[in-house]
Amino acid sequence: MKYLQFDPSRKYDLILLGRVTIDFNPVDYYKTLAESTTYKKYLGGSPANIAVGLSRLGKKCGFIGRVSDDRFGDYVTDYFKKEGIDTSHIVRCTGGEKLGLTFTEILNERDSSILMYRNQIADLQLNADDIDEDYIKEGRALLISGTSLSESPSREAALKALFLAKKTKTPVIFDVDYRPYNWKSKDEMGIYYAIVAGQADVILGSREEFDLTQQLIDPDMKDKAAAAYWHKHRAKIVVIKHGKEGSTAYTCDGQQFTIKPFPIKRLKGFGGGDGYASAFLFGLFEGWDVIDCLEFGSASASLLIASHSCSDSMPTAEAVRSYIKDCKEKYGEMIARG
Amino acid sequence: MKYLQFDPSRKYDLILLGRVTIDFNPVDYYKTLAESTTYKKYLGGSPANIAVGLSRLGKKCGFIGRVSDDRFGDYVTDYFKKEGIDTSHIVRCTGGEKLGLTFTEILNERDSSILMYRNQIADLQLNADDIDEDYIKEGRALLISGTSLSESPSREAALKALFLAKKTKTPVIFDVDYRPYNWKSKDEMGIYYAIVAGQADVILGSREEFDLTQQLIDPDMKDKAAAAYWHKHRAKIVVIKHGKEGSTAYTCDGQQFTIKPFPIKRLKGFGGGDGYASAFLFGLFEGWDVIDCLEFGSASASLLIASHSCSDSMPTAEAVRSYIKDCKEKYGEMIARG
Amino acid sequence: MKYLQFDPSRKYDLILLGRVTIDFNPVDYYKTLAESTTYKKYLGGSPANIAVGLSRLGKKCGFIGRVSDDRFGDYVTDYFKKEGIDTSHIVRCTGGEKLGLTFTEILNERDSSILMYRNQIADLQLNADDIDEDYIKEGRALLISGTSLSESPSREAALKALFLAKKTKTPVIFDVDYRPYNWKSKDEMGIYYAIVAGQADVILGSREEFDLTQQLIDPDMKDKAAAAYWHKHRAKIVVIKHGKEGSTAYTCDGQQFTIKPFPIKRLKGFGGGDGYASAFLFGLFEGWDVIDCLEFGSASASLLIASHSCSDSMPTAEAVRSYIKDCKEKYGEMIARG
Amino acid sequence: MKYLQFDPSRKYDLILLGRVTIDFNPVDYYKTLAESTTYKKYLGGSPANIAVGLSRLGKKCGFIGRVSDDRFGDYVTDYFKKEGIDTSHIVRCTGGEKLGLTFTEILNERDSSILMYRNQIADLQLNADDIDEDYIKEGRALLISGTSLSESPSREAALKALFLAKKTKTPVIFDVDYRPYNWKSKDEMGIYYAIVAGQADVILGSREEFDLTQQLIDPDMKDKAAAAYWHKHRAKIVVIKHGKEGSTAYTCDGQQFTIKPFPIKRLKGFGGGDGYASAFLFGLFEGWDVIDCLEFGSASASLLIASHSCSDSMPTAEAVRSYIKDCKEKYGEMIARG
Repeated sequence: MKYLQFDPSRKYDLILLGRVTIDFNPVDYYKTLAESTTYKKYLGGSPANIAVGLSRLGKKCGFIGRVSDDRFGDYVTDYFKKEGIDTSHIVRCTGGEKLGLTFTEILNERDSSILMYRNQIADLQLNADDIDEDYIKEGRALLISGTSLSESPSREAALKALFLAKKTKTPVIFDVDYRPYNWKSKDEMGIYYAIVAGQADVILGSREEFDLTQQLIDPDMKDKAAAAYWHKHRAKIVVIKHGKEGSTAYTCDGQQFTIKPFPIKRLKGFGGGDGYASAFLFGLFEGWDVIDCLEFGSASASLLIASHSCSDSMPTAEAVRSYIKDCKEKYGEMIARG
Repeated sequence: MKYLQFDPSRKYDLILLGRVTIDFNPVDYYKTLAESTTYKKYLGGSPANIAVGLSRLGKKCGFIGRVSDDRFGDYVTDYFKKEGIDTSHIVRCTGGEKLGLTFTEILNERDSSILMYRNQIADLQLNADDIDEDYIKEGRALLISGTSLSESPSREAALKALFLAKKTKTPVIFDVDYRPYNWKSKDEMGIYYAIVAGQADVILGSREEFDLTQQLIDPDMKDKAAAAYWHKHRAKIVVIKHGKEGSTAYTCDGQQFTIKPFPIKRLKGFGGGDGYASAFLFGLFEGWDVIDCLEFGSASASLLIASHSCSDSMPTAEAVRSYIKDCKEKYGEMIARG
Repeated sequence: MKYLQFDPSRKYDLILLGRVTIDFNPVDYYKTLAESTTYKKYLGGSPANIAVGLSRLGKKCGFIGRVSDDRFGDYVTDYFKKEGIDTSHIVRCTGGEKLGLTFTEILNERDSSILMYRNQIADLQLNADDIDEDYIKEGRALLISGTSLSESPSREAALKALFLAKKTKTPVIFDVDYRPYNWKSKDEMGIYYAIVAGQADVILGSREEFDLTQQLIDPDMKDKAAAAYWHKHRAKIVVIKHGKEGSTAYTCDGQQFTIKPFPIKRLKGFGGGDGYASAFLFGLFEGWDVIDCLEFGSASASLLIASHSCSDSMPTAEAVRSYIKDCKEKYGEMIARG
Repeated sequence: MKYLQFDPSRKYDLILLGRVTIDFNPVDYYKTLAESTTYKKYLGGSPANIAVGLSRLGKKCGFIGRVSDDRFGDYVTDYFKKEGIDTSHIVRCTGGEKLGLTFTEILNERDSSILMYRNQIADLQLNADDIDEDYIKEGRALLISGTSLSESPSREAALKALFLAKKTKTPVIFDVDYRPYNWKSKDEMGIYYAIVAGQADVILGSREEFDLTQQLIDPDMKDKAAAAYWHKHRAKIVVIKHGKEGSTAYTCDGQQFTIKPFPIKRLKGFGGGDGYASAFLFGLFEGWDVIDCLEFGSASASLLIASHSCSDSMPTAEAVRSYIKDCKEKYGEMIARG
């Protein structure tokens, strides 16, 4: 069964709305951030990483966002252009707002934490006037990153895009992408996550993210009940992630599909999610069966946590396929499908 | 047909969420505000006026709002108590925010304008923490005044109340109550009005207010199409007002009922709407036919525009009935039902 | 001895910098503000009242300030024009800031309190760009009202005016005019009051205001020591007020002159200070002996507290003289000079 | 002649007030910041660098400032402690404010630019309550960095420290340290620089910085006139810097002393100023002749621009002496005194 219809006449496979930032990852890692002395600079921000991931896999992406009007703004738009991502709707800030920075502390293979610079931040300056109905109509789907909902005016920009997606019959993918930094309260998350989830065709989130989304509706809904609730609204596919336990996609026809992580030698404890999302969505755009989308996502996630960055290391389709093949040869066909 | 079910076991007929303010109306009117020298002080704010109106008609109301921590805050809560309105969920501001003030310029019977003091305003400090599920569960219905959506944190307080009303199966009445002052952009109105309208059981608004609400959905929907659109969501009754041309209630069973204004010697050009809303809702709570609700609302509106205030002059049921009777005797039974 | 030299070739006797606001005084007074129902509107704000006072006494004043762009802004500039005060440097706000409002609670002849509306207030939007060296050069003296120092950008506008007064050899009169509302901390008062006092030729303040001004210099300086301290800086005349105990002017040649209040049937407990300041300054501009300036100031103060407003009731020189004459006839020549 | 008296009974040679930040200098320099990929992290901020410089030279410093409550806050306080700088009056921010970051673009030996992160910045949260009279009394001198004046509440903290220094007879060193980023207008610089300069015993600034300081006093004062103006206030030594042309110290007894840069193979175009200031002040604290202070400062400046950082490369007294000796042997005794 095809859960979503993508209009082939449209110019872009996916238009993503949300943040582009910079990651500074320590070269001398496995120390505290206070102790690390040297850092490498990478493009970052979950929807930006997904855009890079999808482009490397051969899909055509556009991006709606705000960046700083300085060398770092140059850096990220140059990077996008090099990857073939359309930057015509990335707007420069005029009020001195800066690109978000994420300094990563990698203590060991599993434990990491981040120090974020997100005060008067460029990405959350996106505003309703930046949202262009004609551009949204050029995407076969619109991805809204939940972090864009954390503050005005970006919040209203994302909601306007949601309304215009509905008006132009553009499927909406909602990646909850919970980042506590800019949110004022838990209630606000519950309100805005639920408003967007209630209009989305695909919802991607962790168990914790679904709890935040459902807190004002029914705080006790577990996975199946949650999926059923959102299917009653507009969702066709609801993906609930449980970290290293794996993740499950619930479809509106009552089916469910589960995937587990592929084995890998980790370098760091983060970055897998964006690999997962981009490779999973790649499968959807290709019209694959849901379980194949999940497998591709899971493989890409493993490749990412084994590497130093979240964007620069995004694999090609060839690389993902070859990694899956190797794993299956080594561990058996069902290695991740468990 | 009964369009709404009110749970008789609940303590209050209606809980209203929104602003309480003070009106200063000139005693020496029919001049500019610069020229008028003497002013009378009245309780004001659309939902506050509706609460007073319903109380005078014998209904039990509760109120959710924020007021200033000063003598003016005393004034409005004292006034509410005297009218029998529950003030247990009216919270005092702690950051020096002041009660809204409206200075009215009454140039003649038809032309008036207002000068509003709404900077760092008490009512828009209402926040999500002020919203109490147990209190909402005590109301047979919840009225949300659209002005509460104009700014954070009041916006999120109103949206949380909306979620909790749904969770507690409390019918929602949405009074669009458009006041341009605190809104940042037209897009924001379109977004938030539409979110609440999409969840409301009763929607009350002028033609202009419906245009604002529908701008991101379909800017060309006229009355019938608009009513049909909201009926497809959750609305049972959609009331669209056309000023002195009268107003029409569209019900979810496809009927429509129209009322016209009663003749009156006007004093001022405003204040009718709150009389209309309170008397119309009174009829709904009494279980009347929609056309009788409208007639009662229209009569109360006429009484209000003939008097100096919007709250102090709210009529009793007796007074409305007697005024309708007089009009019908003088002008014929169909005077407003035309 | 002439303590100050005023350049007769300049166009205005005095240019005042600070707030213009509106007072709403209850017509039904001797009640709480919650209980009073009817209010009269008057021009208010200490420097505005002083400007009106001096104009009524026949002096030519100019004013530097910001007012709201609405009917209330019209009201105060119209009022100034009618009084002959130059309004060429009163600027309209563009960001929706409103004129300050003061609602007065008059409980009895002595006890009053005020409820101020000063959030996002017009007068404190005065900014450095509004300060015009050529205009300051047209005044024989510049009066800076201390309330203008309470917040940026008005604070920097006042300090720029202070620098330009020094540059253009314009004597500076500093009226401490302490109003707690907009100040963030006591330290800030100590800092900015002391900066301006250290450059002023005349300082007018109550004992409490001098304590605030000297808190970071020497919190224990009493009247004589305080006057001596400021004389070592730039001050020629230091006037320290002790309410109904009277007030004393200390001059830089080591003299001191004391005045007491004139007897009067009070209506209210405020408003005397602005009458005092305008009549005292009138005497200075006329070249009178300091004790005569004080007597004129004290008489005007008494007339003000016997009347309903602080601006509309400002007396002519004729009226002050006649009142002094009456008092002296009734109570003896030394009635106030004690 | 001894221009300043330092009280030997006090605990610290110098207490500095101002910012501590982090510099990220590219390892792969001589490229644009967009192109550089790898960065080294250093302690930064002019007064922080001067504190490190003085400590390396053997003087005991204390610091008044605000830092972020995160790993970067740990980094800078740990660094200070390691250098022997007292951190008892460095306060952690509680509102999520972050440490300032400076990303340096080193295009070649002369041309560099910086990209600053200074939105909701930790250092400018220093407030008047953080200023402790007892601590100021423990310093033989207080250095105020002009950047601390750029915004409230840090502005008032610096001004309060200035008042308390005067009250406790602590000499004040004013380093104008002009950084455009956080200033709202040129007028504000003119106002606050002049207020502090008017109370300072030593003023250090470039020609451009003196122009900014004097703009509201007399925009045309050249070096000699400027020095004379500040000597008439409170200044004993006025140092005016002209970049590679050298700098001149004007003393209150009418003398002047000029120094030129020492020859060096530059790595970058910045960092010299902080080396200069720390070594110059070292000489003052040692009681040296002014020309010897200048020579020591100039030599330290040259060493700094030849190295990769502004703090980590601060030389010991031994290293400065040895460098001066080498230069004199190579180029002649008068190499810088020219």
